[in-house]
Amino acid sequence: MFNKITIVGCGLIGSSIAREIKKKKLAKNISVCDVSSKALRDIKFLKLANEISSNLKACCKDTDIIFICTPLSAYEPIFKTIRDHAPISAIITDVGSSKSNIIKLSEKILNKKSSFIPGHPIAGTEESGPKSGFLNLFKNRWFITTPCKFSKKKDQKKIEQLWTKFGSKVTSMNARSHDNIMAITSHIPHLIAYNIVGTASKLEAKIKSEVIKFSASGFRDFTRIASSDPTMWRDIMIGNKKQILFMLKRFSKDLKHLETAIQNNNKKKLFNFFQKTRSIRAKVVKAGQDTKASNFGRKN
Amino acid sequence: MFNKITIVGCGLIGSSIAREIKKKKLAKNISVCDVSSKALRDIKFLKLANEISSNLKACCKDTDIIFICTPLSAYEPIFKTIRDHAPISAIITDVGSSKSNIIKLSEKILNKKSSFIPGHPIAGTEESGPKSGFLNLFKNRWFITTPCKFSKKKDQKKIEQLWTKFGSKVTSMNARSHDNIMAITSHIPHLIAYNIVGTASKLEAKIKSEVIKFSASGFRDFTRIASSDPTMWRDIMIGNKKQILFMLKRFSKDLKHLETAIQNNNKKKLFNFFQKTRSIRAKVVKAGQDTKASNFGRKN
Repeated sequence: MFNKITIVGCGLIGSSIAREIKKKKLAKNISVCDVSSKALRDIKFLKLANEISSNLKACCKDTDIIFICTPLSAYEPIFKTIRDHAPISAIITDVGSSKSNIIKLSEKILNKKSSFIPGHPIAGTEESGPKSGFLNLFKNRWFITTPCKFSKKKDQKKIEQLWTKFGSKVTSMNARSHDNIMAITSHIPHLIAYNIVGTASKLEAKIKSEVIKFSASGFRDFTRIASSDPTMWRDIMIGNKKQILFMLKRFSKDLKHLETAIQNNNKKKLFNFFQKTRSIRAKVVKAGQDTKASNFGRKN
Repeated sequence: MFNKITIVGCGLIGSSIAREIKKKKLAKNISVCDVSSKALRDIKFLKLANEISSNLKACCKDTDIIFICTPLSAYEPIFKTIRDHAPISAIITDVGSSKSNIIKLSEKILNKKSSFIPGHPIAGTEESGPKSGFLNLFKNRWFITTPCKFSKKKDQKKIEQLWTKFGSKVTSMNARSHDNIMAITSHIPHLIAYNIVGTASKLEAKIKSEVIKFSASGFRDFTRIASSDPTMWRDIMIGNKKQILFMLKRFSKDLKHLETAIQNNNKKKLFNFFQKTRSIRAKVVKAGQDTKASNFGRKN
């Protein structure tokens, strides 16, 4: 059991971590820091922490572990405050969706003796804020660490053990691979979901209301994805810019090919393309990452 | 109660219609025609019809209503057989996802005295085949009729009453509006889901297996959509070509703008864009087309 764990940024992920730590009694003291007074009120109401403050300096005091769970653009001042006010023995870790940029920033700011274990739980919903978090959010979900030169082996192990206690499956890879994989599995899907909802939102008013009325035909799934936190996603798009732009080029090129196939009534090409993508779905289901239960025609 | 209803093409939609007609005793005789012998065996096993055949001529005999539930590319020979062998009093209707092209085809082939009520239920899953159909698939879902010059008012009413009995909410619009709305709510979403899964499938083998492993971060939802029936979707892309290409141009232009914003670190533009799309989601939920329950982080 740790004496004190600090959570900086207590939204969906941060509050779910607090819930796990509290429920499983993993720390004597839970300290939560957030810049939003509404979030702080909610955390107090939910009884998720025994120290609740907007003052990071105070929250860092005598702590054993600091979880950074804010949007990526908030890391710079947070790293500075941690460097200047947290014990040098404190393990710094995070849950950010892009890693190379964050590691680079940490190397610029943190003390050379700091211990930083970059991490990313592959879990979440489109909701945000402390009230949207829940116990078991991380259960059977992957937690990825992307060790850097500040990552002490023994501390990495401690963080991984914590996530195992949260119910996660833990794995490790380099930051570049992580960013590459997330670009295609998460960042581009979100970007194009935002984009199609944006395209629809510019339609004339009459058609727009019909689009909403008949959104069950596929569109509603994109509106769900595109309702995720805008600050978080703005920061991810900038944070993982290089990999996202690289993958987006491939995506746009492939889409151009499909467009040409439609233009030319190239039935064979369209069929083969639509046929091939089915096998990937089978592999996703086989890998336990989704169920076969059909969801597109949800009944409620 | 009708004497005989014929269903041509008995997959997910056709078999669900058969289930409704049987359960609600809406016809004395249900006749099912399909070109797949496997489908015919499944329909026999499921006891969905009392006449099961691959011979459309026989299935059309003395029928009151013909539901065409095949991929769009099969309509031409079906229209011809119906014209030559079904009673002139039979009501012809369909469930195809694009309407203008089908109406044009019907005007070219059908007898001038025929009664054709083009229709489209906004319901379905990514599964296909008679075993994937189910009772209540259409419950609380929209059914759209797009009347054409072959649509007799009294027959349109009969078809709409049937769909009301299936549990659907019924509405009517012109074919062009339908095709326009479906391009943005259904056809483009499917096309880009297929496309991103296709882009991922071309990645190097090592990364591809990681993409599958970490697909819960968004990608899995696209693999689900992109596992829909390839023949059906090939036909839709060609069938609604004009509207799809028009909307795709807008989509690609918007995506180019987002790409430029990422390239230029234009945080303000990205934030405003991601913020704006949230309001559409709220309207979708308000319109009863989806629930607020978060789904992206499904627990199984």
